Amino acid sequence: MDTPEIALTRDVIERFAETRDPRLKAILTSLVSHLHGFVQDIEPTPDEWNEAIGFLTRIGQACCDRRQEYLLLSDVLGVTTLIDILNHRPRKGATETTALGPFYVANAPEMPSGADIARNQPGERLHVEGSVASEDGRLLAGAIVDVWQCDGDGYYDVQYPDYKEPELRARFRTDREGRFAFWSIMPSHYPVSAGGPVGEMLAATRRHPFRPAHIHFMIEAGGHEKLVTQVFPADSPYLSSDAVFGVRTSLIAEFPQGPPGSAPEGGPEPWRRLSYDFTLKAAGRSPEAG
Amino acid sequence: MDTPEIALTRDVIERFAETRDPRLKAILTSLVSHLHGFVQDIEPTPDEWNEAIGFLTRIGQACCDRRQEYLLLSDVLGVTTLIDILNHRPRKGATETTALGPFYVANAPEMPSGADIARNQPGERLHVEGSVASEDGRLLAGAIVDVWQCDGDGYYDVQYPDYKEPELRARFRTDREGRFAFWSIMPSHYPVSAGGPVGEMLAATRRHPFRPAHIHFMIEAGGHEKLVTQVFPADSPYLSSDAVFGVRTSLIAEFPQGPPGSAPEGGPEPWRRLSYDFTLKAAGRSPEAG
Repeated sequence: MDTPEIALTRDVIERFAETRDPRLKAILTSLVSHLHGFVQDIEPTPDEWNEAIGFLTRIGQACCDRRQEYLLLSDVLGVTTLIDILNHRPRKGATETTALGPFYVANAPEMPSGADIARNQPGERLHVEGSVASEDGRLLAGAIVDVWQCDGDGYYDVQYPDYKEPELRARFRTDREGRFAFWSIMPSHYPVSAGGPVGEMLAATRRHPFRPAHIHFMIEAGGHEKLVTQVFPADSPYLSSDAVFGVRTSLIAEFPQGPPGSAPEGGPEPWRRLSYDFTLKAAGRSPEAG
Repeated sequence: MDTPEIALTRDVIERFAETRDPRLKAILTSLVSHLHGFVQDIEPTPDEWNEAIGFLTRIGQACCDRRQEYLLLSDVLGVTTLIDILNHRPRKGATETTALGPFYVANAPEMPSGADIARNQPGERLHVEGSVASEDGRLLAGAIVDVWQCDGDGYYDVQYPDYKEPELRARFRTDREGRFAFWSIMPSHYPVSAGGPVGEMLAATRRHPFRPAHIHFMIEAGGHEKLVTQVFPADSPYLSSDAVFGVRTSLIAEFPQGPPGSAPEGGPEPWRRLSYDFTLKAAGRSPEAG
């Protein structure tokens, strides 16, 4: 005979039998099965469950226009990255993806090739250049390269209370050879928002809240899957312990010192440089493991 | 070689390696394993995951002093009942438990045996009497029998905006023969709170929000485990589809019409009656399956 627990789980799943939307039904069936499995595994006391309920409640109540604490929970539990992997299976030859992150802003200003997205920002000067190609090696002209990054203190423009206009974000268009270039500054590593319930969890588990330095790229070209990714300087701290599990080995790049006297467009000295070539998946092929 | 998903799950679990509290570490390890298993099972799209994040957020934001929407979610997914089963394993001869529910109020007024907890409430008059015994059959004098129930319209006293003092709740003490008795009215079936995100989920899955009629009992006696349970009238609707999965067959009882002219203490006519005998587990034995 079934144990009362097994009978209960079956009863709960059967209760969703009349759900009309088959996808919703499949999601709830799987949820109940895994959630009950978790609870049977840890056998929480009533006090522990109350504490869990309180934790989930406080996460919801910490959310506001400028803060999505549940997304942060998903991030630090690796779920956001897991969903990114499942939706964008690595494919040999195509650039790996990572999550969008909370600081993307649509419609950043479009700038001409070689422009400086850092303007008057203090920091180590950085020249970024690269190419956008298709999986078959064809270079893609007119691709939109949307870039955004934090400043030298680890903050994005939108995190400043007096934020007025975009800083350290812009859109470029690849030239006829599929190339783009811009000036910026070196991004810093920075902590994820650690002042809420998720930060409490990190502290209670002795996890640090830091992400390694990175530059975000969103690249779109006709006939290709949109690529959302990040490139990480090889000398950044926290590369092996990103709080949100976003690092892929293939996305770590050298940002070497530029040779003196050779900065593009007569740019500033001293300077560092990043050269990174992106490869987009052709649209319409079903995802597959690499 | 491991798939990227498997490597990620292992990486997330390893990130909790420095957690000092072994119980917290075990809980988070199990959580990550089951949560990633769920996500791999359903492979949510980014849009679906955003919707899930929004749902969890709205549940947290629906919580206030008078409403615990996360507990309600736990209830309708059967988790509250599962935790009750795991913490109070059924044991042959002992009364089965069910969850406390959100309407318990500590320190209800103590009343003498035979008192009427319904006072001026309209409804079918009900006489309740029973006994409290230990597993060895010994009747327990001086046990505290805390009872609470909804009115004939399906509402508990504390749900009324103009709530001032306890109604349909009281504490009794068993007499020298371990017996108690009181007058009340028949409780009604009623819907759980369906005006929030959890109610939206019930509607989207074509689940009704009703609980069958029941009377709550919390019984305490020295040397015994506190018993928290509910007794359900056998003629109530929704006995086989309780929205929160609280019904146990052993807790369904006949509430027959009382024979005319025989109401205890010269009580009202017509009347129904419930006679139910409770058996408490001796304290200190470890839980076991029945």
